[in-house]
Amino acid sequence: MNILEIIEAKKRGRELEPAQIEFAVNGFTADEFPVYQMSAFLMATWFQGMTPAETAALTGAMLHSGEELDTSVLSGPSADKHSTGGVGDKVSLLLAPLAAACGLKVPMLSGRGLGHTGGTLDKLEAIPGYNIHMDNEPFLALTEELGCAIIGQSGNIAPADGRIYALRDVSATVDCVPLITASIMSKKLAAGPETIVIDLKTGSGAFMRDLESARELATALVAVGKAYGRRMSVIFSDMGQPLGKTIGHANETLEAFDALRPGNRQTAPQDLVVLTEELVADMVRVAGVQPDRESSLAMVRAAWDSGAAFDAMLAWVSAQGGQLDPDRPDLGLEIAPIAHEVVATESGWLSSINCRQLGLSLADMGGARRKVEDPLDLTAGITFHPAIGDELKKGDPIATIHCNTPSLAMASAERLMAALTFTSERAQRSELILGRYS
Amino acid sequence: MNILEIIEAKKRGRELEPAQIEFAVNGFTADEFPVYQMSAFLMATWFQGMTPAETAALTGAMLHSGEELDTSVLSGPSADKHSTGGVGDKVSLLLAPLAAACGLKVPMLSGRGLGHTGGTLDKLEAIPGYNIHMDNEPFLALTEELGCAIIGQSGNIAPADGRIYALRDVSATVDCVPLITASIMSKKLAAGPETIVIDLKTGSGAFMRDLESARELATALVAVGKAYGRRMSVIFSDMGQPLGKTIGHANETLEAFDALRPGNRQTAPQDLVVLTEELVADMVRVAGVQPDRESSLAMVRAAWDSGAAFDAMLAWVSAQGGQLDPDRPDLGLEIAPIAHEVVATESGWLSSINCRQLGLSLADMGGARRKVEDPLDLTAGITFHPAIGDELKKGDPIATIHCNTPSLAMASAERLMAALTFTSERAQRSELILGRYS
Repeated sequence: MNILEIIEAKKRGRELEPAQIEFAVNGFTADEFPVYQMSAFLMATWFQGMTPAETAALTGAMLHSGEELDTSVLSGPSADKHSTGGVGDKVSLLLAPLAAACGLKVPMLSGRGLGHTGGTLDKLEAIPGYNIHMDNEPFLALTEELGCAIIGQSGNIAPADGRIYALRDVSATVDCVPLITASIMSKKLAAGPETIVIDLKTGSGAFMRDLESARELATALVAVGKAYGRRMSVIFSDMGQPLGKTIGHANETLEAFDALRPGNRQTAPQDLVVLTEELVADMVRVAGVQPDRESSLAMVRAAWDSGAAFDAMLAWVSAQGGQLDPDRPDLGLEIAPIAHEVVATESGWLSSINCRQLGLSLADMGGARRKVEDPLDLTAGITFHPAIGDELKKGDPIATIHCNTPSLAMASAERLMAALTFTSERAQRSELILGRYS
Repeated sequence: MNILEIIEAKKRGRELEPAQIEFAVNGFTADEFPVYQMSAFLMATWFQGMTPAETAALTGAMLHSGEELDTSVLSGPSADKHSTGGVGDKVSLLLAPLAAACGLKVPMLSGRGLGHTGGTLDKLEAIPGYNIHMDNEPFLALTEELGCAIIGQSGNIAPADGRIYALRDVSATVDCVPLITASIMSKKLAAGPETIVIDLKTGSGAFMRDLESARELATALVAVGKAYGRRMSVIFSDMGQPLGKTIGHANETLEAFDALRPGNRQTAPQDLVVLTEELVADMVRVAGVQPDRESSLAMVRAAWDSGAAFDAMLAWVSAQGGQLDPDRPDLGLEIAPIAHEVVATESGWLSSINCRQLGLSLADMGGARRKVEDPLDLTAGITFHPAIGDELKKGDPIATIHCNTPSLAMASAERLMAALTFTSERAQRSELILGRYS
């Protein structure tokens, strides 16, 4: 077997054997052939795609390149959620303790943000003292004890994915469904949960711009998960506007945790509440804890309204060293001191948002990374007030920019305003939940 | 401008600007971006192809990466021929002195053989003393004086082609018409002739297996040549069986030069004679020396039959240090001493030849290179007697294998016989000239 034959076969559209795909992944990871052959293989894959069997083999090869967590040590059904990423997506911070309060075991390995999208790990680091590093054994023990724990994904999880992703990033092969599928699933499978629910986002703030390519990705994700014996479910959600009212780190963490307080389910931003409820209910139902969507939703809402989820959150964060003060409205999180108000300069309906630009306006003030090595200001953030379909009068508040430097707030405001489209006619509100697949 | 955008544009099928193609070629040659980005670009090009304007720009960028010969110093019309390569293709050795005897100036830069195909340069080195190295100025002076000269292509001619070809070879992107076109034409344009005639071969011994892809390549070659102000013509010829009776180096050189002796045009292998006549006549006609094919053919035959071409050959070879003795039947060339006869083991019609395997059977005894660095036995060779469509009786001669080691002759004979297909029904003869394009 040699890599040139494998590239040639993929180029010609012939289906590869699992052994050929393993040869490519393992050989690349072990530096057994030059990087330029892997990039040629990736580009050929971009054009020819992969069959479900090939995608499963690719995922498996990447999965087996590193260590896998043994969740069989957990006493309850294990479940996890993956989001394809967006702007203001703080769902994991509510979802993990909610699912724990419903009796699930949620051992969550999270990543950092890049570009316009945020990362759960960065949001957790806005909590003073929160420790994202933990060995597998104490991590699973903590998950067993408290129902959930969230740490950073170590370099030992699917290391082949890290190397392949880095190459895709510089060879124009990021936007390729089988490669995306293997990247997502190799990491999720390594983390070991029995049930995996995917929040597949489309729209201006998502990697998938349209529902058609999202459906293609969902089909591939579910097929791979099932091939590895997992229970799978996908919810398609809209990322044409930020989720919740906040974008940033400390302020997103605050919005997420504050929403969990008993009684706040009705007052918190309803898009955040509804998507979180639906995703946790899916985890509960698919894991077999409840028989249908209605009973699952009822269970989630009860855990939310009783304060059980808020308590589970406090216990989990505290166990990982995080210092939250539940008696303070800001929970003790530090938000940047300058609050620059952005108001409507004319009247009209907000008809669309370039959500990617909104995410980048956070980067303008150091609140998001343009490159992996960029430092991050966790206190910077944006509170974005209107939703698509809202009518605004001249002078109405659009956003509050939380920043440490006035000039950066101005630059951020400028990009933010340029990302909004107003019309003189009534604009339609957008649907949050666009579909399901399992 | 950056290479990632250029890869992305090619991947999406957008037409690249000449400046983008120059950026890719120059940046790659100057190591300004990683090799894995160039291989991704080449693979995207394999899938999306190139427009005529893109192919011309690619050729130009590769051409301008090195030095170009100034053939304007030559007093007559300059012309050259390029063959896409085959088994037993010794045409250049006859063609250069024939064209010279017709008044053309032929400054020929040649290459070495690899795999199943031979190279003119290696065949010339079978002549004792022949010097393939010469600076441009004396090379052009010799061409001016004698009408032709043949040297090795220096590393300064289109160096970008050398680097790109090496990468194509290991990234499964060799078989791509615009890349082949730019590779051929960048070198031919650098050598400077006004008229370029292409011998485009198809069949089991050629790189192009079918006439359809050969027509596609011809169209691209002619378009690029014309874009650079050259007079272009293409002859499609069959490479389904060896050209002439010999395969090897010294024995091919002997066959070629011996055919040039006055009177031998009628007795030499007719496929070799016809293809050579047609190609030289095309050079004569396209260069404007004669008005049509008939008058051009008449001129070529006169130069052949009068001995003018043979004399031109002796003068040219001698001027480059080659020692030939025209009074000896073998011209003083050394052929390997062992002559192993291969005979038909059953009766039947020879219906097809795997010509590539025939070329490799020469490599079995060191008479061809499998890798660039392989040493070459220039005295080894094969005299192949029958042609497709011939009827053979059991015991009839098929080949004489000229070799220095008996065991190697046996291995070569085994591969040679496996390359032949015999049928019990009458097999059709094949056409030599399959078409023309200009």
